[in-house]
Amino acid sequence: MIKVAIMGYGTVGAGVYKVLTGNRGEITRRLQGEEIEVAHVLDLRDFPGDPAEAVLTHDFQDILNDPEVAIVVETMGGLRPAYGFTKQLLEAGKCVCTSNKELVAEHGLELRRVAHASGVNYLFEASCGGGIPVIHVLDGALTADYIDEVSGILNGTTNYILSQMTAQGQDFNEALKEAQAMGYAELHPEADIEGHDAQRKIAILSTLAYGKYINYKNVYTEGISCIDSVDIAFAKAVGRKIKLIARSRRTAEGTFAMVAPMMIGRENLLYNVDGVLNAVQLHGNAVGNVTLFGSGAGSLPTASAVAGDVISCARSLHEPIPSDWSDQEMDLLESEEMPCAFFVRFRGSESEARELFADAELTRIPETDEIGITTGIMTEKSLMDVRSGTGHIVKAIRLG
Amino acid sequence: MIKVAIMGYGTVGAGVYKVLTGNRGEITRRLQGEEIEVAHVLDLRDFPGDPAEAVLTHDFQDILNDPEVAIVVETMGGLRPAYGFTKQLLEAGKCVCTSNKELVAEHGLELRRVAHASGVNYLFEASCGGGIPVIHVLDGALTADYIDEVSGILNGTTNYILSQMTAQGQDFNEALKEAQAMGYAELHPEADIEGHDAQRKIAILSTLAYGKYINYKNVYTEGISCIDSVDIAFAKAVGRKIKLIARSRRTAEGTFAMVAPMMIGRENLLYNVDGVLNAVQLHGNAVGNVTLFGSGAGSLPTASAVAGDVISCARSLHEPIPSDWSDQEMDLLESEEMPCAFFVRFRGSESEARELFADAELTRIPETDEIGITTGIMTEKSLMDVRSGTGHIVKAIRLG
Repeated sequence: MIKVAIMGYGTVGAGVYKVLTGNRGEITRRLQGEEIEVAHVLDLRDFPGDPAEAVLTHDFQDILNDPEVAIVVETMGGLRPAYGFTKQLLEAGKCVCTSNKELVAEHGLELRRVAHASGVNYLFEASCGGGIPVIHVLDGALTADYIDEVSGILNGTTNYILSQMTAQGQDFNEALKEAQAMGYAELHPEADIEGHDAQRKIAILSTLAYGKYINYKNVYTEGISCIDSVDIAFAKAVGRKIKLIARSRRTAEGTFAMVAPMMIGRENLLYNVDGVLNAVQLHGNAVGNVTLFGSGAGSLPTASAVAGDVISCARSLHEPIPSDWSDQEMDLLESEEMPCAFFVRFRGSESEARELFADAELTRIPETDEIGITTGIMTEKSLMDVRSGTGHIVKAIRLG
Repeated sequence: MIKVAIMGYGTVGAGVYKVLTGNRGEITRRLQGEEIEVAHVLDLRDFPGDPAEAVLTHDFQDILNDPEVAIVVETMGGLRPAYGFTKQLLEAGKCVCTSNKELVAEHGLELRRVAHASGVNYLFEASCGGGIPVIHVLDGALTADYIDEVSGILNGTTNYILSQMTAQGQDFNEALKEAQAMGYAELHPEADIEGHDAQRKIAILSTLAYGKYINYKNVYTEGISCIDSVDIAFAKAVGRKIKLIARSRRTAEGTFAMVAPMMIGRENLLYNVDGVLNAVQLHGNAVGNVTLFGSGAGSLPTASAVAGDVISCARSLHEPIPSDWSDQEMDLLESEEMPCAFFVRFRGSESEARELFADAELTRIPETDEIGITTGIMTEKSLMDVRSGTGHIVKAIRLG
C-alpha cells in the first residue's frame, strides 16, 4: 500500500482523486499488485457529501507529518503557498507530482535539485500539454536523438479562439467572449491570450529537449489579441491557418525560442489542430518529426498525466527517474535573428511591394485593398529594415 | 563505459550504429557521463571500408562470450537464428533491444519471461510504428488510464499505396509497382499488402495496452489488394479516405481486434496520415484520445527507437523496466460481432437499397452505376444476413 496526498481539490485535483480511485484495478496491475490509497486531500474549502470528504484536511501539516505518505500531488496552482509546501515535502523525502506550470517554470530547477538531494522525484508531465505525454517522450523515449526543434500548440484557449475566428468568421472579442461562456477562457484571460502560458510551457519542454535550463522570461512572446479578421481572411486566401505557435530551435548559430501567432500551411500537421486540442512536434536528427496530439487541458486529461506521474513515482520511490538537464542556463539568440518567412500586409502599390520584397508572392482579397505579401526566408531584423524605409507595411505575421 | 553489440548490419542495424556513434555527446549526457561503445557488429557479410569494419565479426560466440557486452541490439529480422541468439543472450544476463516484430509477436512472451528471470530487459519499441514512441507511452505514461482502444496506421507500404491511389488515381497494381520502385514496398510484398505486418503490431500494442497476451494469429486480418479505383472514388464522394486500419477495442462484451481497410472521415486525425507516415491513436478513460504521428519505418527513425531502448537498458542494467502484461492469453471476440458502420457497394435499385438498409445514405458517382450505401452501426454478421437475402451487394468496407 502506497499512501498519496492531494493538495488542491479543484478541477485537476478532483480529477486526480477520481482517476486514482476509479482506475484502482488498472493501477494495481501496473504496480504488480501494490495498491495506491489517497490518504489526505488538502483544501481550504469543505466538500460536504463529496467522496473525498472523509480524507479532507485544511492543515498542510497533516500531510507533511504523515510518515506513511510517500507521494504528494500538487494541483493548487500559483507560486504561493505551492512553492513552500513542495520544497518542504521534497526535503522530507516525499515525491511530488504537479500540474503547476507557473511553479515548474519559476522554481523547477531548484525543486528538482532538492528532490534529487533527498533521493525522491519531482515530476510534472501535466504541466505541458495536459494529457499529452510529451515529457515522457522527451525524457524516456527520444533519448538517443539530438533534438533540434520543439514546436507546438500548447494553449487550448487561444487555439479555440483562433479556430472560431477561422471557422465562424468571429472577430477576436466575440470569440473570446464565447470561449469565456464555454468555460474555455478565464474571466481574466491575459495569461492565455498574451501567450504567457505557452511561454512557460515551451521553456520547460525546451529545457528537457536540449538539456540546459531555459528561463521562460527570456522567451520572446507575442499574444493573439492583435489578430483580426483581415489576417484570418488573408491566411485562408493563401491556404493557411493562424495558430499561436510556441517554438524553439537549436541551430549552428545558437538556440531560438519564441511564442507568436504564425500562419501554418496544410503540409504541417499542426494545421489540423483545432478547438481546444493541443499538439507538440519534436524533431530529432534520427527520428525526424514525431507529433503528439491530445487534450491540452480539462480535468481528466490533466489528471491522467498527474496520476501517471504518481505511478512512475510509485515504481521508483527512492531513486531519481532520469531527467538529464543541467542547471546551466542556456543563452537564447534574439528572436529577430531567427530566419523565417513572413506574411506582410502592405498598403502600397504592387510595384513597390515587388521592389521591397524580391521573389515575394502577392495576394489580394475582397475584404481589404491591402496587398498580402508572402516573403521568402529572412529575419525580423531585415524586415524591420525594410519597414523603416517605407510607411506602407501594416503588420507582419510569421509563416510557421 | 557500457559495451553494446549489434546483430544484423542491414538498414536498421547500420542506422543504430550511426545513431549510437554519431549522437555520442547527447547520449553521454543522457547517461550522466556514462559512455556507450559499440564493441561488436555481427553480420555474415563483409563491409570493407565501412566505419563498423573494425568491430565486425561473423561469429555470434564473440558476442555471447564477451562478458563486457551488457546490451545487444537485434536487427536481424526473422525468427531464425534471431530467436535462439536472443534467448541465449538473455539467459547470459545481457539486455536485448530489437526491431524484430515477427520475433516479438511470436516469442515475445517467452523472451520477456527469460529476460526477467535473468534480471535484464527485452525491449522492442522499434517493433511497432518505427520511430513513434508508442510503447514508451503505453508502458510509461498512460499508466493510470483504463485504455480501451488502440487504433492506427501501422504499415507504411500499404499507406503509401492507398495514398497514391487516392491522390494520383492509380490502380492498385500501378501503385504497388511504384512503391516497389521507390523502395517503399518489397519485391515480395505479401506481409505488408495482406496486413500481416500490421496484424503483428496491433497484437503487440494491444497486449501492452490491456495487460493480457494477445496472440497475433487470432487477430482478424484483411489486406488491401481487393481495394479498387471505384472504392477510392466512392470514398472521395463521401468525404473519406481508405486506410488500412489496425484496431482493437475493449468493450463491456469483450475485446475485438482486427486489421482491415476502412473508410476514415475527416474528423478522425488518421485521415491526415498520408504516404509512408504512421500514426497510432490511444483512447483512455481519463486522457481521452492521444494520437502519435511519425515515421513508421526507415533506417534512422527505426534506429532511433532501438537506440532509445539501448539508453533505457543502460539506465537500468540489472532491474526490469516495468511492463505489466500477464502471460494469460486474452480471448478475442469474433470480428463479425464488432459493431461498426459499413460502406456497401450495391448493384440494385434505390428502393431495394432503402428497404435493406433503413436510415442509410445513398451515394452515386459517375464512375459506376452501382449505388454506394452508408449504413448505420451494425455488425458484419447482420450485414452477412442482409447479403444472403439479396444478390446485389458487390462488396462492403468498414467505416472507421
